Amino acid sequence: MTEESGDEAARHRDKMAKRKAVQDAEVAAKTIEKGLLIVHTGPGKGKTTAALGLMLRALGRGWRVACVQFIKGGWDTGERRAVEVFGPQASWHTLGEGFTWETQDKARDIAACRHAWKRAEALMADPGIRLIVLDELNIALRYDYLDLEAVVATLRARRPDLHVVVTGRNAKPALIEAADLVTEMGSVKHHFAAGVKAQEGIEF
Amino acid sequence: MTEESGDEAARHRDKMAKRKAVQDAEVAAKTIEKGLLIVHTGPGKGKTTAALGLMLRALGRGWRVACVQFIKGGWDTGERRAVEVFGPQASWHTLGEGFTWETQDKARDIAACRHAWKRAEALMADPGIRLIVLDELNIALRYDYLDLEAVVATLRARRPDLHVVVTGRNAKPALIEAADLVTEMGSVKHHFAAGVKAQEGIEF
Repeated sequence: MTEESGDEAARHRDKMAKRKAVQDAEVAAKTIEKGLLIVHTGPGKGKTTAALGLMLRALGRGWRVACVQFIKGGWDTGERRAVEVFGPQASWHTLGEGFTWETQDKARDIAACRHAWKRAEALMADPGIRLIVLDELNIALRYDYLDLEAVVATLRARRPDLHVVVTGRNAKPALIEAADLVTEMGSVKHHFAAGVKAQEGIEF
Repeated sequence: MTEESGDEAARHRDKMAKRKAVQDAEVAAKTIEKGLLIVHTGPGKGKTTAALGLMLRALGRGWRVACVQFIKGGWDTGERRAVEVFGPQASWHTLGEGFTWETQDKARDIAACRHAWKRAEALMADPGIRLIVLDELNIALRYDYLDLEAVVATLRARRPDLHVVVTGRNAKPALIEAADLVTEMGSVKHHFAAGVKAQEGIEF
């Protein structure tokens, strides 16, 4: 090693040691533990997929988890099959019947969303469950198929150790206000625009 | 049902029928099937988590999958344990030794990244694998620990049926150019800012 490269290595070490000290202080300053209300919104891909990733991580920790699907119907074979591998540790509740342009029946859509919300309330009341995904709840709220105020109040009043993940575009401001963590998925580039179809194993 | 609500239901049905026709035409226009190069970038949460969700969905489809971790070290217990449930269908390769401010040794970081990339190349050459996650590869590229041009060329030359997911902040423009799908995770609200610590089952 030349003297110069030895100097450079020392500079790198000093810089990173300082960065580590800042990082460690930041970590030490965070002491609160609580069940989080997490929202994945925005027009990009990955909202439901990141919720699935959280389910997987929680399953790996031995937690019981549940997913309630408010809108989607048949597009979930891959994830359902994977979650079934964990047996009674996970439960999956598909109560939506597809997007509203599939059913073309508003009264039926509203009934399905209310049914799904009742199921979500029952799951939130089960003390054995540590993480619940409310998939596409934002769509149900956007179309006013559920009462926003009542839904947000119930989510705010969740058990202190329960994590809830809400997905879907156009999250309502009241929900964002109540949330601990909100990620906006932005679409930088999309293969659908290049004529690539939705494929098994990737989209469903 | 009153006449008025009957009219409203009819209007809703018509509107949704038109929307469905547009939707169906859009779906029909997409005919290409190909292995995608997917990039999850941006400052928000969910980049690695959404990659895990893709792994889970692919596992549910019975595919063989692999994950190579370029930077992270010990923060992966939850997801590793979950993926181990799928036995030889999934393989996990943790070759990074932590963030660079942890090791404070640039030469060691570079060696670890090169080792990880060699492993990634070997996995990409295995025709049995259908999806590979290259976790935090963007960090390795950002610090110039790997040759950008060579990495992008190899990713572009991947097998036609192989999906590759690259995660990490600050994705390089050349990688975005080569990608089929790019999602930017934006941070709208973060619980760390409110003093909440990284918690088991959620962050790791």
